[in-house]
Amino acid sequence: MKLADFIHSQSMKKKEFNARLPVLRAELLEAQHSLRKADFPVIVLFAGVDGAGKSEVVNLLNEWMDPRWLINRAYARPSESGKDTERPAFRRYWHDLPPRGQIGLFLSAWYSQVLLGTVAQRVPSEDFARHVQRIRRFERTLATDNALILKFWMHLDQRHQKKQLKRLEANPATAWRVTHTDWAHWAMYNRFVSAGDQIIDATDTQQAPWRVIDGADHRYRSLTIAENILSAIKSRLDGATTSTSEPENHVIPKTGKAKSKSPGKDSRQENAVPGQLPDQVTTKFQPSRVNWLAGVDLKQTLPRKDYLRRLAQSQGELNRLCRQAKQHDVSSLLVFEGWDAAGKGGSIRRILQALDPRNYRVIPTAAPTDEENARHYLWRFWRHLPNAGNITIFDRSWYGRVLVERIEGFARKDEWQRAYDEINEFEQELVESGIMVCKYWLHITQEEQLKRFEHRKVTPHKRWKLTDEDWRNREKWDQYEAAVNDMIQRTNTSVAPWIIVPANDKYTARIHVLDTVCEQLRDTLHISS
Amino acid sequence: MKLADFIHSQSMKKKEFNARLPVLRAELLEAQHSLRKADFPVIVLFAGVDGAGKSEVVNLLNEWMDPRWLINRAYARPSESGKDTERPAFRRYWHDLPPRGQIGLFLSAWYSQVLLGTVAQRVPSEDFARHVQRIRRFERTLATDNALILKFWMHLDQRHQKKQLKRLEANPATAWRVTHTDWAHWAMYNRFVSAGDQIIDATDTQQAPWRVIDGADHRYRSLTIAENILSAIKSRLDGATTSTSEPENHVIPKTGKAKSKSPGKDSRQENAVPGQLPDQVTTKFQPSRVNWLAGVDLKQTLPRKDYLRRLAQSQGELNRLCRQAKQHDVSSLLVFEGWDAAGKGGSIRRILQALDPRNYRVIPTAAPTDEENARHYLWRFWRHLPNAGNITIFDRSWYGRVLVERIEGFARKDEWQRAYDEINEFEQELVESGIMVCKYWLHITQEEQLKRFEHRKVTPHKRWKLTDEDWRNREKWDQYEAAVNDMIQRTNTSVAPWIIVPANDKYTARIHVLDTVCEQLRDTLHISS
Repeated sequence: MKLADFIHSQSMKKKEFNARLPVLRAELLEAQHSLRKADFPVIVLFAGVDGAGKSEVVNLLNEWMDPRWLINRAYARPSESGKDTERPAFRRYWHDLPPRGQIGLFLSAWYSQVLLGTVAQRVPSEDFARHVQRIRRFERTLATDNALILKFWMHLDQRHQKKQLKRLEANPATAWRVTHTDWAHWAMYNRFVSAGDQIIDATDTQQAPWRVIDGADHRYRSLTIAENILSAIKSRLDGATTSTSEPENHVIPKTGKAKSKSPGKDSRQENAVPGQLPDQVTTKFQPSRVNWLAGVDLKQTLPRKDYLRRLAQSQGELNRLCRQAKQHDVSSLLVFEGWDAAGKGGSIRRILQALDPRNYRVIPTAAPTDEENARHYLWRFWRHLPNAGNITIFDRSWYGRVLVERIEGFARKDEWQRAYDEINEFEQELVESGIMVCKYWLHITQEEQLKRFEHRKVTPHKRWKLTDEDWRNREKWDQYEAAVNDMIQRTNTSVAPWIIVPANDKYTARIHVLDTVCEQLRDTLHISS
Repeated sequence: MKLADFIHSQSMKKKEFNARLPVLRAELLEAQHSLRKADFPVIVLFAGVDGAGKSEVVNLLNEWMDPRWLINRAYARPSESGKDTERPAFRRYWHDLPPRGQIGLFLSAWYSQVLLGTVAQRVPSEDFARHVQRIRRFERTLATDNALILKFWMHLDQRHQKKQLKRLEANPATAWRVTHTDWAHWAMYNRFVSAGDQIIDATDTQQAPWRVIDGADHRYRSLTIAENILSAIKSRLDGATTSTSEPENHVIPKTGKAKSKSPGKDSRQENAVPGQLPDQVTTKFQPSRVNWLAGVDLKQTLPRKDYLRRLAQSQGELNRLCRQAKQHDVSSLLVFEGWDAAGKGGSIRRILQALDPRNYRVIPTAAPTDEENARHYLWRFWRHLPNAGNITIFDRSWYGRVLVERIEGFARKDEWQRAYDEINEFEQELVESGIMVCKYWLHITQEEQLKRFEHRKVTPHKRWKLTDEDWRNREKWDQYEAAVNDMIQRTNTSVAPWIIVPANDKYTARIHVLDTVCEQLRDTLHISS
């Protein structure tokens, strides 16, 4: 059913409400209690027309459930919150994701911008498609990671919207809720509803279905939503993996019966934006047929004298460019991956020497904390993105998912296999928001690694760098090589290409890294060298 | 020795440096490794004149140690970082504190503002005293919690400062480090040095001693600092609790011999700002002789009809005031404490109903996460402070330290006894930065609590609220009552007074809370009612 055809039809008698509520509340609490030990988070999103009761329902849910395991989030426009230096736009939604075992209630959130933009007819159709694709990817990424996502569109027909707004205005405690914008939206009800229909249509997926809720009657709407949340959590806890959405009619019948959705529907949106990454992961994993590492010329060397001269030049240039980037609010993200002992640390330090310490952060990727472990594996990288004009350097990164986690079995096969697309989407989002991304693979030969390991073994202050794990990894060289080739094959995108650094000679490697950072900065800042 | 009398005298031959460095590096790594299992963080701060090598030393320490357990932080001025909505000023230093077992290297950080302000003669003497007191408290709070704090003032005489700046300018890789400001500081060398002397004098405490390092020779300065850090970590790990500072001469002899400092010195700064809290905790704990709770009139009731009328009025008023607060960037912090079943949740919800969900966060104080556990107990509250114009509501709070943690023995006696002053200082800092603080104790009688427990027991959807712990706490009513009286006695400050809410009647309590929030908002906004 289209929102445009919506007519208020659902309400609930006080008596019925009062009879059902105590049972519902007890069951909600019980479900919440069981959820605490479950391995998925629940993400509930509320959108809809003004006056349909979004905030009220969130307040009631807070009353009915245990607030200790409930996160509520509503968002001011980025410029209003003083957080406009934080990009990309979805960073704050990532940041606020509830941990597994808990529930997050989100008001409009990642739908707000596209909805209001579409109503105001400020969103050209390509932008609309891009917005929608970003939302679908975000929700798919979370859902694939096991999140239970429920989305409620709270609706009113135009007559009842007027009634609700009038009613809110009449009460001194709620009059403030009704703003000029609300009445402006009411006046363009048809446009608002058509925007809603477009967005629901484009983002109603099996993994993150919409439910349209009749918002005219406060008892009906709150009980229905709470029952929906309850039944969705219960069926997920019972091990049911089918979606609880109703394919034919978005309005949920009072019984809230769960039904599986026909699988064909989602493919409709696939490749909505031509030339972009597919919206849905469908491709079967194929090992790379190209040996990307085999082609690297590792013979180059650089005499110390030349190295020192070029080092000073390149660091000076890097510093000049970084100051310009700072001025223009261009952020950068540098990712360092490579064989053990390939010289990541040394290259990073040569970069740092050229930077103003106020503008960078180095994030060494160690074991995740429990806050990180309780969320999607990309969460811990989202939390360290650079603010406007700043630089974050990751010493190892999200690529661990398709390297060590793949090979050591820390990630399941389906997890690491879908990670390539997730990573591509993540990086694309960074680049689209104006962040420069440089990814380095520092490449050395097996012989060179052995030499360095042996050197570390006998040098007291380098011994700490050499662990048993390094030797174990070395034994798996071939497996790693295959994983690296797969990684490069699948994540060497046009927006964030890999830079493979010949690193058998440390001087060559460091200058190569510095010069390519400079080059990419010049590109990003549109400066010719 | 005064900085004003400083003459460059320390340098180190390349040969000696090269001979000592490998040993030092191996030992540093070993110490860092042992530190990982220790229960204290290491906080190293670098300040000093331009050109004395602060950044260079930090870079070297990163090269010499394992960067995975090392945090580096340097700060742009708040307005430059786009974070000026985050207050108070020390919030970012709290936020960036390393966890126990790790090392944080801070460039200037909490000394930057007072140092540059004093050089520019922009800091009136009362402000200087306040700045200094805040720094001393911050460091004392951390040191008392076991942090090892080391502060290095890197110094140059005026002739050598010129030489260093010239040298840096001559190298394309470092020329950028020398700015107009550096030369301006050089031109007013005497003023800079006198500011440095004042600040060192005022903040050189036993728990956070300064060491002045001759910065002219890059080998001497880096080796000396690294050796100092090493010996301080080692003696702390060995269980030595004496400070490693040198009382007579700030310049550390090369041997870096640890000596205990005469204890008399610190008291000099005590009560530096008249009428403010004492700078040093010295008072012995005395149980409160006043029974603050005994005087509360719990007989008041409010009929439902009046309640509903006043609820609407007060919520309307609260909303109006909160919108004004938002406009004026006035942030608020509401703290709810009280007996189990006293109605904290209900009161909080009545407030939320009047607020715009985009502007508030409710923080239920549950068990700390591991990231929280690894830091000072106030850290997890600092991380949730409201941004400009917003409201944070704590459902239970830092007062747990002197209530449940005291009574259940989760905090040691010295820990909860010093918490009163720490809390007062924390709240004073919030208020001084313009944040409004309202603290509520919801008070009910033992009989009323029993009634509510019994009611919860038989009401399915309220049963979750009642745990075995509640019954156990109830048995300790007298102990809790004493703890509450001590808490009120010692934290009922003029900047953040307690509001004791008679809560035997829920309606009375809710209106009381709403009206006092409004009152305090009017005060803060200078609005007469």
